[in-house]
This record gives sequence, C-alpha cells and structure tokens, in this order.
Amino acid sequence: MPSVDVPVALLGYGTVGASVHRLLEEQGDEIERATGHRLRVVRALVRDADKERRFAPATGVLTTDPADVLGDSSLAIVAEVMGGVEPAGPYVLELLASGRSVVTANKQLVARRGAELFAAAASSGAQLRFEASVCAAIPVIKVLRESLVSTNVHKIVGIVNGTTNFVLSAMDEGRTYAQALAEAQELGYAEADPTDDVGGGDAAAKLAILSTVAFGSRVPLEWVAVEGIEGVTQEHVRAARALDMRVKLLARATLADGRVDARVGPAFVDVRHPLAAVEGPFNAVMLQGDAIREITLEGPGAGGIETASAVVADLVSIVGTTGTGFLQDDPVWHELERLPPGDLASPWYLRLEVEDRAGVLERLAHELASEGVSVARLVQQPVDGHATLHVVTHEAPAGRVDRALAAIRALPESRGDAIAIPVVSQRGVENLGWA
Amino acid sequence: MPSVDVPVALLGYGTVGASVHRLLEEQGDEIERATGHRLRVVRALVRDADKERRFAPATGVLTTDPADVLGDSSLAIVAEVMGGVEPAGPYVLELLASGRSVVTANKQLVARRGAELFAAAASSGAQLRFEASVCAAIPVIKVLRESLVSTNVHKIVGIVNGTTNFVLSAMDEGRTYAQALAEAQELGYAEADPTDDVGGGDAAAKLAILSTVAFGSRVPLEWVAVEGIEGVTQEHVRAARALDMRVKLLARATLADGRVDARVGPAFVDVRHPLAAVEGPFNAVMLQGDAIREITLEGPGAGGIETASAVVADLVSIVGTTGTGFLQDDPVWHELERLPPGDLASPWYLRLEVEDRAGVLERLAHELASEGVSVARLVQQPVDGHATLHVVTHEAPAGRVDRALAAIRALPESRGDAIAIPVVSQRGVENLGWA
Repeated sequence: MPSVDVPVALLGYGTVGASVHRLLEEQGDEIERATGHRLRVVRALVRDADKERRFAPATGVLTTDPADVLGDSSLAIVAEVMGGVEPAGPYVLELLASGRSVVTANKQLVARRGAELFAAAASSGAQLRFEASVCAAIPVIKVLRESLVSTNVHKIVGIVNGTTNFVLSAMDEGRTYAQALAEAQELGYAEADPTDDVGGGDAAAKLAILSTVAFGSRVPLEWVAVEGIEGVTQEHVRAARALDMRVKLLARATLADGRVDARVGPAFVDVRHPLAAVEGPFNAVMLQGDAIREITLEGPGAGGIETASAVVADLVSIVGTTGTGFLQDDPVWHELERLPPGDLASPWYLRLEVEDRAGVLERLAHELASEGVSVARLVQQPVDGHATLHVVTHEAPAGRVDRALAAIRALPESRGDAIAIPVVSQRGVENLGWA
Repeated sequence: MPSVDVPVALLGYGTVGASVHRLLEEQGDEIERATGHRLRVVRALVRDADKERRFAPATGVLTTDPADVLGDSSLAIVAEVMGGVEPAGPYVLELLASGRSVVTANKQLVARRGAELFAAAASSGAQLRFEASVCAAIPVIKVLRESLVSTNVHKIVGIVNGTTNFVLSAMDEGRTYAQALAEAQELGYAEADPTDDVGGGDAAAKLAILSTVAFGSRVPLEWVAVEGIEGVTQEHVRAARALDMRVKLLARATLADGRVDARVGPAFVDVRHPLAAVEGPFNAVMLQGDAIREITLEGPGAGGIETASAVVADLVSIVGTTGTGFLQDDPVWHELERLPPGDLASPWYLRLEVEDRAGVLERLAHELASEGVSVARLVQQPVDGHATLHVVTHEAPAGRVDRALAAIRALPESRGDAIAIPVVSQRGVENLGWA
C-alpha cells in the first residue's frame, strides 16, 4: 500500500501539543506500517511564537494567526489541544462545519457543546473524536463506541480524576486534607487553583461524556450531581478503614428503565472491590453491560504524553476510517430521562452523633425504619458523654436516607452533624452495591 | 445515511455462534445507528442441521455443506466460531484468499497459522480480525492495534485463562488442587479434559497472539515457555499468603533490546499488585508502553455471549473500515529475536529443604551468592529435624537461579526438592518486578 501523506494542524502547542508532534515524528514509521498513512504536523496555533519550547517544531510551523489554520483547506485533520471553551469552541465549530475532522482533548468543550459540534460534523461529513478528553491514555471512548456497541452498557463506575485520587490516597496514609493537597500541588498533580479537581467539576465533565457515549443519549453536564472532596476528613478515612473500605471520589452513572442517574461524590469502596486498589494519580473506569458483564480499564488519567497518545490514536482512527462514515456521527440517538436524584438506591455509611442515654438507639432505629432504611452493620462508640454511631445500611434510595437523616438531626438527643456517604461493596455485577 | 445491508455467514453455530446471531438481531438497531450498517446472519455451517438449538436461525440458514458458505461470493463477511485448526484453517484461508473478510474467535488457529492467513488476506484485500481469540469480551486486540499504535508497548503481564484463575482462587480459599478443579468442572469453568487450560496451552496461544500484536513481530507459539498449574499445592498457596502474595498463572512477555521473552507459569503476585485482585474466572491484561505507562484491561475472559460480543465488535469494525485499508494487514512488521529464556530477570520465591544443622545456611547463602543471587527476605522453619527455608530474592536472571538451585540440590545437607517461583511485586512501571 503506498503511503498517504496527511497534513495535520494543532490548535495549541503546550505540553500535550508538543507531545503529539513528538509521537507523530518518533512513531511515524510504526503508524505508517499500521495504517499506510504518514501524519505530519505542518501548522500549530500558539499565543507566542517566540517562546522557548521543548520539542519545538520546524521553522514556519508555529503561527499566532488563527486564520492560518482555520482558513487553510489543505489541512485534513486538526487536533485541538489548547483547552478552554472560548475560543476553542468557535474554532472547532468552524473547522467541522467546513469539513475538516477534529480531534479534541477538551472535556469541558465536549461536555458543554458536544451537541452543536456533532451537528456541524454530521452536516459536513467530518469526524469529531475526543478520546483524550476522558482519562487521557485509557481508551475508554473507543472501547465504548467500537467494542461495546452491542452490549447495552447500563452502568459506569469510575475513578476519573487523578488529583483527588492522589489526595485521598495520601490521606489514607495519614495526611490531612490540607497536607495531601499541598503534596499533590508540589508533585504537579494539582493546579495552584485546584477547585475544578477537588470540587468534582473535572470528574463531572468526564462523566457527562462517558454516559452520553455509553447510553447513546445526551447527558448534559447539569444532570450530574456533584460533590467534591473538600469535606472529606481524616475521620471519614479512618471510619472507612475500620470497615475495610477506602474513601474514593467516584463518578457513577446508571441507566435503568430508560432513565439516567449520574453523580460524582465521595464513596466508601470495599477493599475487595477493584476500584479500591486504584491508587495515586491513576484512573479506572468499570463498565457493566448485558453481554460483557463487567469490563474495567485502568491507567494513567493525566499527563502530557499520555494525553497525546490518545490524541494520536484518534488521528490514526480518522485516517483509517475516512470516507466510510464509520463513527462519524454524534454518538447520541436516544432521548432518555434523568432519574430523580433521590431515587437512586445504594447502601450507605451513616455517621450519627447523639447523647449517650437510654432510648436513643431506639429512636434512631425508628427514624431509619420509618423511611424503610434497614441497618446491616452498626458500631457505637462512646465519646465524652456522647455516642458516635457508625452505621452501614442495606440498599436504600438516597431520598429516603436524606429524610431519615433530617428527622434524626431534629431529635433533641442529636449532637453534631449526621452524615451519609454511599458504599460500594465487593465487585460483581449482581452486588456492585448500587442498583 | 441510508442503511447498508451486510450478509454475514457463520462457520459453526454452537454457544458462540448462536450468541452472535442473537446479538446481531437484538442489537441490530443500535449497530445500525452507530455504523449505518445492518448485519444479518444469512447462513451458518453446522455438522447437524436437525439438532435442537437455542436461538435457532430462520429456516434455510443452517447448512451442512461447506460449499454453501465457501462458494457464495455474496457473503461479505464470515465469522469463524467452530474452533479447531482443521478444517477451520483451510476454510478461513479459502475465504480470505477469495476476498471475503473473516472474524475469528479461534486462538489456536491465529497463534499457529496467523502468518499464512494474513498473507492471504493481504493479497486479496480482505480483513482478518481476531478480538474474540484472546480474553473474550476484553477488547485488548483493538486497544493494542488502534489505541496504542504510537506507544511502543514493551511489556505484557496478564491473567488470560479463567479456568486456572478460578482453580487458584478456590485453592486460596483452602481447597486442594483436585477439589478446586472438580468445582471448576461442576460450574462449567473447566472442560472434562482440562489439559489445555491447566497445562498452560490455552494461555500460551493467547500470549503468542498478544505479543505478536503488541511487538509487531511474529512470536511463534513455540517461543512461549509454558508451565501449568498442575504442580501448585496448598503449601505454595500458603507460602504465598504468608508473604502477602497470591499464586497466579501469569502470561508475561517482554521486549528488550529487540529481543522477546514470553512465558506462562505460576507466579507469586504481591497483594498490592492489581493482578492479585483478579479473582475467579476473570481475566486481566496489563500493558506497559513508553507513552502510556501502564494500562490494564479486566473483564470476563470466557463465555458464549462475552465471546460473541467481541465477534460482533469485529464485524462492526470491518463494515466501518472496509475500503480504507485500515488495519487490514498483518500486524507484523519487525523480525525480533527470542531472548534466551535464562536471561530474563525477576525476583524469586525459593523454597529449600535442608538438614537443620550448623553451617547449612552458610552453604546455601554461598551457592546463591556464587551465582549473584541476593536474598531480600528469609524465613526459616524447623520441621522434624529438617528446616524449610522460604526465601525471596532480589532480581536475578532465571538461568542463575536455576544453577544456584542445582548446586543446592547437590549439597549433602539437601532434603526434598528446591523450587523457584517468580515473584511479581507491587505495581508501578519501575518496579513491576521483572525487568
């Protein structure tokens, strides 16, 4: 097969962009042998063309004028690695509308403006691929779209943010939240402003993309219920340990009876569950479907070269499928409803503080029972005239647990705050612990 | 996009074949929405057309005459799900040579005759896809070929045989080898004749395929050093436990300095290593590469519907890439050498039995040191006048450990057999434990 020359442009030439260029150069022979195509970076849009750069491109490749990319119809494929919704969104939209295929690493862009971008691609016949927007090098988008198309994936449980997983792993080793976060910042796993990571926003964008692709229905970012890890304390981590569990920030989406529940938040994960072993900055996504039972993909969820490898994989997939229509359209073809958030059932860890006197346990049990919440395990610890109760419940809907907690908080014997954290128990499709 | 009708034939209509038919029917709408193609099973070659079948095809689909499939040029794609090297091999060869694309679930066929089959496909322009031949629904072949083409995968460590993993998991819970195997047979995880599984042959064929694809060089089945689990006893399992490890049958392949080492055999795996948590009939494959660090894929490694989902994924990929040449050729383009088996370095667990008297430890240590094998941990247990030594070594080449053991066996103080089992320590690209 004679080699086909494919001119590629980059929007952005930071760590990821430079790594894409480097991989295409260093692995050009391998890619050509596998696909018959030679991909070359011929242009890259940057803010400052004179800045010193690692793996700098040849003279003339860098430009500060968007028109050099947007206006050049000889560019077959463009990789958007600049980040942000503006001006990346309008650039990508214009490229797709004019028939040029785009690969993007931009989770906020895909999560917020995917519908519009795919509509532009569909009408021009261009492809939009976005593997690098979720969990860097872990090929979960390709696997969902190409390998699991016939398997009705109905559940996703993932650790999709490396920063928070690093912080929680460090807390598990005894650090406070503040110490762990400072350590993550020192090692480059957390930004100077870590809000998007620790607040769950980054994970929410990834979950919106994953569930949209898995369920074939648009899951808007606004549907994802988000709780960050800012409130996780050493006390939670120790309580989890005592129950043979670990605290993890889980991204979870369920499709049941045509309705979608998607949420990001701290959870207690049984140590025998595969996700409990995912440590430090690693990510993992577990997919459950009819024909596959459960497939888990694990790997580094961030990093310049890791993200670039996903960008290159998408470039390669575009050159290998151009002209066939294969996976060119929006991966959305249903219109599912959102499940009311209070309806999602799960076992729960409850921490309740009450006065340590006769009859209190009975009242608590009564409030739980009134909402149909049944207790699986209970440990009561006296502390200075108070009692702390650690409760693991059987499966119960979030709304009922919330109501029971509100009733418990209102009891005259209640002291301190009553908290609830979902529990994810041992692996297994039947007993993943949240139905 | 108007739907394209794709007539598909099956070679074989057992559990996997019937499940392929079922998935294509039940998921036909999803597949059509994703790809614009409607795949229909129009013919299936069987030995007995009158046999009662679950999910039986329409009248006229089953045939006992190979010519009805081989001689029908209207069949665009054929899925080979009959198993065995004969007559499946000649059938697939004839189909590929005449330009019809083939999907196969047949690991022995791909491992033994891949070169010849790919040559036929290349000369006719047909595609040969084989996802289902390795670990059923786990999409490791697609990920290696399409997502990791630019990442120089240089190590594979996997649990690729569900039967042996089930047996070892059951032994870990206290059963003897015979009890565990009987239980596996009862539950349908092991064949009446389990030789191919417990002897490592099944895992070896999968490893030959995985390393051929990952390294882009033919790794013949004969290169894979194979040891089964028949020799694993409760004593080994308990020794592993005492060291915070688990006994697993690992398939491992390494590419270093242009040379390949591939081996299947029992290993001690540190409990903190992700593969230690892979239990029962599940499989997992860990891939290490330059740009990805380490990606692990886990899921069910066997089963009719799981295998069928991989066959369907390959059918979908063929319809989506036909005419582009994408991944149509043999995934082989290097000619790497085999590493001499004794050169592969690893830490080791050694179990040595000696007379319990002064000076023996010194002699053992001398024999190990003479071969450059250094001791990381040592536990000595006296048993009836003998002593059993449990030793974990630092990294040492297999050949040197073998020579040290031979010397130790020859000592007058030696009692019982001295054994060596490789150790896989905690995860991490730097310290996976076998370099």
